Amino acid sequence: MPRRTFLGSLSGPKVDVAIDMGNPFLNVAVDGFLKIGTVAATRAAAEDAYFIVKRGNISRHNFENTLKKMCREGAYWGTVAGVYAGMEYGAERIRGTRDWKNAMLGGALTGLLVSSACGHNKDRVVLDAITGGAIATAADFLNYLA
Amino acid sequence: MPRRTFLGSLSGPKVDVAIDMGNPFLNVAVDGFLKIGTVAATRAAAEDAYFIVKRGNISRHNFENTLKKMCREGAYWGTVAGVYAGMEYGAERIRGTRDWKNAMLGGALTGLLVSSACGHNKDRVVLDAITGGAIATAADFLNYLA
Repeated sequence: MPRRTFLGSLSGPKVDVAIDMGNPFLNVAVDGFLKIGTVAATRAAAEDAYFIVKRGNISRHNFENTLKKMCREGAYWGTVAGVYAGMEYGAERIRGTRDWKNAMLGGALTGLLVSSACGHNKDRVVLDAITGGAIATAADFLNYLA
Repeated sequence: MPRRTFLGSLSGPKVDVAIDMGNPFLNVAVDGFLKIGTVAATRAAAEDAYFIVKRGNISRHNFENTLKKMCREGAYWGTVAGVYAGMEYGAERIRGTRDWKNAMLGGALTGLLVSSACGHNKDRVVLDAITGGAIATAADFLNYLA
């Protein structure tokens, strides 16, 4: 039975938020959700900040829209990353090795699940699974380049 | 002076192609081009293979189109990855540390360069730089999750 413990730590410049859910599978998924959700929200904020700086005026409407967009994008990409992190972790446990094939499997399953959940048709789901696998494999390769 | 040596090795199941250009910067860029180019070409091939299997017939026309698409996608994503790998390596050398900020800088510079090279307008270039940085940061985070 997983322990029901919650541990929180937040350190600014190192971007490290850790919440211990008492279960390694959940930990990985929550970690992925938080980290990638933060990145996606920051991206949405940076995009809107550019337009605000460019236009030169800040109205309340802008700010509200930006917040909504940050929440939406953060939640969406966080969920995708959480599903991916869980799937990759599962693939690693089942296969017993750590290599790029875990990333490929995890990415393909994530593409499949997310696309199905969005109610896309069969063709689109298969294509999204292929694209998900390719993106995850590419991301995995990129980290072992230098 | 960089040594002008060329070393080639290809091993199938492990996906490891190494070409020594005699210069670490070039090595990283070429490595990125080859690896991500292969992933993108495979993705294009898998996408077309799905439609061929679905339709149930193979004509010569299909095959030629697939090859062209593989070359186009492989070259495009390979170039993007090569630029990114070079930029990240450069950022690592200049900053002297290895962390997610190198990935962010590399991704942002790559988005900037690729978007400028494609002849997009100023707004689009800035947004592509922001997106490039976000994607690279996300890819970097994902690899340290499990």
